[in-house]
Amino acid sequence: IMPCVLSAPLVVTLVGLPGRGKSFAAHRIARHLNWKGESARVFTVEEAATPDTLKEILAHFQSGNNVAIIDGMHLTQLSRQVIASFCSETASHHILVEITCDDVEVADNMERTLKFYEKTDKNIDWRHMIQEKVHRHLDDYEPCSALEAPLIVVSASSNPALHAVTARGIQGALQTMILGVLASPLIKEHVFYFTRHGESKFNMMGRIGGDSGLSERGAKYAERLAIACPAPKLIWTSELERTIATARAIPGPRTALKELNEINAGICEGLTYEEIQERFPQEFAWRDQDKLKYRYPHGESYLDLLQRVDNVVQGLITASEVLVVSHQAVLRCIMAYFMGTPPEDVPYINVPLHTLLVVRSRGYEFEVEPVPLKVECVDTYRVQPKNCQPGRTDADALQTVPAHFDALLPQVIN
Amino acid sequence: IMPCVLSAPLVVTLVGLPGRGKSFAAHRIARHLNWKGESARVFTVEEAATPDTLKEILAHFQSGNNVAIIDGMHLTQLSRQVIASFCSETASHHILVEITCDDVEVADNMERTLKFYEKTDKNIDWRHMIQEKVHRHLDDYEPCSALEAPLIVVSASSNPALHAVTARGIQGALQTMILGVLASPLIKEHVFYFTRHGESKFNMMGRIGGDSGLSERGAKYAERLAIACPAPKLIWTSELERTIATARAIPGPRTALKELNEINAGICEGLTYEEIQERFPQEFAWRDQDKLKYRYPHGESYLDLLQRVDNVVQGLITASEVLVVSHQAVLRCIMAYFMGTPPEDVPYINVPLHTLLVVRSRGYEFEVEPVPLKVECVDTYRVQPKNCQPGRTDADALQTVPAHFDALLPQVIN
Repeated sequence: IMPCVLSAPLVVTLVGLPGRGKSFAAHRIARHLNWKGESARVFTVEEAATPDTLKEILAHFQSGNNVAIIDGMHLTQLSRQVIASFCSETASHHILVEITCDDVEVADNMERTLKFYEKTDKNIDWRHMIQEKVHRHLDDYEPCSALEAPLIVVSASSNPALHAVTARGIQGALQTMILGVLASPLIKEHVFYFTRHGESKFNMMGRIGGDSGLSERGAKYAERLAIACPAPKLIWTSELERTIATARAIPGPRTALKELNEINAGICEGLTYEEIQERFPQEFAWRDQDKLKYRYPHGESYLDLLQRVDNVVQGLITASEVLVVSHQAVLRCIMAYFMGTPPEDVPYINVPLHTLLVVRSRGYEFEVEPVPLKVECVDTYRVQPKNCQPGRTDADALQTVPAHFDALLPQVIN
Repeated sequence: IMPCVLSAPLVVTLVGLPGRGKSFAAHRIARHLNWKGESARVFTVEEAATPDTLKEILAHFQSGNNVAIIDGMHLTQLSRQVIASFCSETASHHILVEITCDDVEVADNMERTLKFYEKTDKNIDWRHMIQEKVHRHLDDYEPCSALEAPLIVVSASSNPALHAVTARGIQGALQTMILGVLASPLIKEHVFYFTRHGESKFNMMGRIGGDSGLSERGAKYAERLAIACPAPKLIWTSELERTIATARAIPGPRTALKELNEINAGICEGLTYEEIQERFPQEFAWRDQDKLKYRYPHGESYLDLLQRVDNVVQGLITASEVLVVSHQAVLRCIMAYFMGTPPEDVPYINVPLHTLLVVRSRGYEFEVEPVPLKVECVDTYRVQPKNCQPGRTDADALQTVPAHFDALLPQVIN
C-alpha cells in the first residue's frame, strides 16, 4: 500500500552512535510538532526498535496521533529495514534522521552526560562505561543511504555557523517542518527571562488592550526587575509603551518587535469585560466557548498568536540569556513551547503580572521558575465561567472577572 | 550593525552555472513566500548584482518589503562579497543558494531551454551558444563556502529520491521556509486539474456549507467532467458527499482529504445569506469588511484555509496530473498559489461552478485555462457590497447576493 502523501502518519527513526545528541534532537522535534498542533510522541529504545515498540507505535497511530519518533541507535541497515517494512505494511511514511558530530561537539555531549550520570552514582566509572559502549558499537555502524528511506543527516558542530543538515528525498509539510527544526543549531544550554510589562493604567481599570503607560506600582516593578534581571544579552520588548517602559532601566541591546505586541482585541480594544458583555454579549459567550480559536472581529485569536510567535521561538532556541518583555496572551503562547502545553490549554496558562519567569534547559526539558518580585498589582486572570451559552445573564458572564478599580484613585494605589 | 534576528530583511543570492535551474528556484521561492504573506521580489541580473541592483533592493526594502532574491550566476567570491557588504551595511540578512545538478538534470534543463529559445529565432545555433557560455564561465566558478554566509546547496537530481539540499548556518522562520521550498524535488513540468463539485442542492437554494448531495444539473456536470478529464493519475476530493459524487465516474486512485473540506462557516453553516443577515447582521457586516481575516464563530476564516491547504500545495508541487475536486473557498486559496494572488484578494478570486480549471507549467510560471463544461447552474459569487457598515439596511447587506431558488422545484430544474 502506498501511504497518502498528505494524511499518512509518519515514523521518524533516529540513527547514530551514543553521545551524538539523538535524544535531544528527538525531543526537540516532538516539542515543536506538538506545539504546532500535531501529535508526536518519542519512543525510547536502547539499540533499535523491537516488535513491542512497533506494536506501541501502531496503537499510537490507531488512536489518532500522527507522528512517532523512535529514539535509539539503529546502527545497522537491518534494524532500519525492520521499521521500513512496518511502515510499508501500515501505509505510513518513514524518514531517517542520522546525527553526526564533530569531535568538540562529541566531547561536549560526553561531559554533559557524565555530569548527569555522576549525580546518580559517584562510584561507577561512567566515562569508561560510555566510551566502552561507543567502541563496542563502532564496528556495527552502517551509515544511512538515501535509498533506504528519505533521509536527513545532521552534522552538529560546536561552531553554530557550521551546523549543517543534508536532506534527500523528503517531501510534504510535516517532513519539511522537521527539517526546519534540525536546520537550526541545536543549542543545549539555554536560560531565558520572560515577564509581562509592569501593571498598566488599563490593567488597574480592568480594560483590555490599548497602549496605556505603567501605573505607579507598574513603575516600581520595572525598578525591581532591573535588579532581578540585571544583565541579559538581548532585550526584546513589544512595540507598546508599557513593555518598553518596563525594560527601560535594564542595560543591554534592545529591539521592539511587533511579533510581541498583545493580542489585537479588534472591536473590544480598550473595553472592560463589563462593557464587552454590555455591547457584544454573544461575542463574549462565543469567546468563552472556544478561547483558542475565537478571533475578535477585526482582531486576533490565540491560534493567530501561536502563528505570530513562531518566529520569536525560532529566534530564542538559537540564542540564550534573552529577556522577553511582552503581554499575557503572547507569553502564554511562547511559554506553551517551553512547558509543552497542548494548544487547547494555552489560553488558560497562568502568567501573572509582576512575576519574572526564568526558563532553563534541563537536558531536553525546560524548567520554569516563577520569581514573584513582590510588588502589589491587580490580578488579570479570568477563568472560564461555568455558563458559556449565548443568552446567559450578565452575572453568569461576569462571574469570573477579576477585581479592578473603576478609576485611578491615588489613595487606593498608595 | 547586526541585523535583527527576527525583523531584518533578507537577501537571497542565487549561485550557479547556466542551465542549473536558478531562475526556476528563485521564482519558486518568491511564489511560496508571497503566497504565505511575505513580500518577496526576484531581481534578475546577468552575471552578478550590480550597484544598480543593490540600489533597487534598498528601495524595495525601504518601501516595506522583506525579501529580495537575486537571480544571477554570482560565480566568484568577489561578486558575492559585494552583496555581503551591502547586507552588513544595511543590517540585512544574507543567504546563498547554490544550485548544482547531476548530468541528466543538466541535459534536461538544456533541452527545455533550447525548446524555448528556438521558438524565438530558428536561425541561431542556440545549443552552441549556451554550451559556449557554460564553458566560458566554468573557469570562473568558485563554489560557495559556509564561511561567506549562511548557505543552502541544492543538488538537483533527475531521480526525485536523490534530490538533496544541504544547509549550513541558516536560522529563523524565513530562512527555514526557503529551505523547505528547496528540499522538495523541483519538478519543472506540471499539469493539474481543479474543479468545484457539481452544483449541490444547497447551492440551488443559496445555502452555504452543509453536506448536501448533487442537484440533477450537478450530476450532469459529473458526467461531463469524466469526459473532459478522463485519466488523472491521482484524484483528491474533500470528505464531503458533493465532491466524492462529482469524481465518482472518473477512474483512478482517489483519497478524500479533510484539508479539502469547504470553509467551516461555524454558526452560519447551512444558512442562506438572507438568514445570516436576519440572525447575525453584525457578523455579516464584519465579514464583508475583512473577508480574509474574519473567522466565523466556531468556524474558519480564509486565513485559516490558506494555512490548511499548505499541505495540499506542497503535495501538488511534487506531483503532476492530479485532479482536485473541492470547494469555492478552498480552491480560491489553492489557486492563489498558482496565480500569484496576494492574500487580501484571495476571497474574491472567481472560481465558478461547472468549470474545469487546467493549470500548466510555463517555465517558472503557471498558466490557468478555465474550461466551462456548459451545464447550467446557479452563480455563487457574491461580490463585496458597497455598504459594509454594521447597522446597514437588509437591502444594502443583500445587494450582491446571487439569485437562487427558495426550494427545489423540479419544473424549474429541468
